[in-house]
Amino acid sequence: MKMIVIGGTGTIGKAVVKELSQRHEVVTAGRTQADLPCDMGSEHSIREMFEKAGAFHAVVITAGNVHFEELSKMTSAKYQIGLNHKLMGQVNMVLIGSQYIQDRGSFTLTSGILSHDPIVAGSSASMVNGAINSFVIAAAIELPAGQRINVISPTILKESMDVYGSFFRGFEPVSAEKVALAYSKSVEGAQTGQIYSV
Amino acid sequence: MKMIVIGGTGTIGKAVVKELSQRHEVVTAGRTQADLPCDMGSEHSIREMFEKAGAFHAVVITAGNVHFEELSKMTSAKYQIGLNHKLMGQVNMVLIGSQYIQDRGSFTLTSGILSHDPIVAGSSASMVNGAINSFVIAAAIELPAGQRINVISPTILKESMDVYGSFFRGFEPVSAEKVALAYSKSVEGAQTGQIYSV
Repeated sequence: MKMIVIGGTGTIGKAVVKELSQRHEVVTAGRTQADLPCDMGSEHSIREMFEKAGAFHAVVITAGNVHFEELSKMTSAKYQIGLNHKLMGQVNMVLIGSQYIQDRGSFTLTSGILSHDPIVAGSSASMVNGAINSFVIAAAIELPAGQRINVISPTILKESMDVYGSFFRGFEPVSAEKVALAYSKSVEGAQTGQIYSV
Repeated sequence: MKMIVIGGTGTIGKAVVKELSQRHEVVTAGRTQADLPCDMGSEHSIREMFEKAGAFHAVVITAGNVHFEELSKMTSAKYQIGLNHKLMGQVNMVLIGSQYIQDRGSFTLTSGILSHDPIVAGSSASMVNGAINSFVIAAAIELPAGQRINVISPTILKESMDVYGSFFRGFEPVSAEKVALAYSKSVEGAQTGQIYSV
């Protein structure tokens, strides 16, 4: 199968590409160092990417920006960053990608543990992750032509503990390699409407 | 205690006002027929409302618009309706209201069952409700001065079955009077960061 991985140069993205490319043709998409240029903050750029991609069977998104800051300093504009990019970027990938993907193709999105296990300064990430999870279970019952959709909700990565560990004290870190297995289950399995917590 | 109910003229809002006004001073806010004029889609209008309200101990929001339509016809712009109004309208009430509310005051928001139990044409409502639930548990750990925040997640109302029943087949409807009890528990109890499903 041919698969598009958006955000294939990030920590999770690289592990997902490594896992899936053992058995499939993987094309990366993103703003830099990708096979297909794509800015997921732009609907026009998303459509252009799918136009160029040729026939594909799976879309995996491991990218998405969110603003982290204490609640008392958050503003409507700062919440818009995550709503526009990590949330609507992924949703637009599904809305537009659904018009191009092969029958029985799959979409695999990324949320995160903060949807239900919050940290200080993470209220935007919580909001966006909760929105993605609920969108996925709703979209799953309406996608056409046997298309599937799941979301991976990872905790803090072992590889990110150096930089973000102080915000996630007490969280059990997981390796990107283990997280990549959840993406494999979503893409190579047959389930839909699932939130895979890992 | 003095309480502000935004959306006090809706089906849930009226039941909440009836329940709380037995024991408290209730002021309604909204675009029409309210004690205090307020358009929750406008940050400026929210701030003006809190400026005029005088000292208060609780904010209850039972209002919020979302666009319902089949997934295949949804667009980014149609999702923005719910993100701007039901989601960010309520979030802005908390961000701004937190600067005016009395110590140990409470915010009670409204989400809905579609966050985890989706219906056709409800993907925007699912998204927004999931976002509100996750925002509330995150905001609860950061609000200052003993301020509390909870969210009520109601199913379809008995009073709304005539109009919306065909979209919610198999859902057990609940009376607005029973839903109002959850708002009373949130406002008059001491819990925070809770999602009350009713």
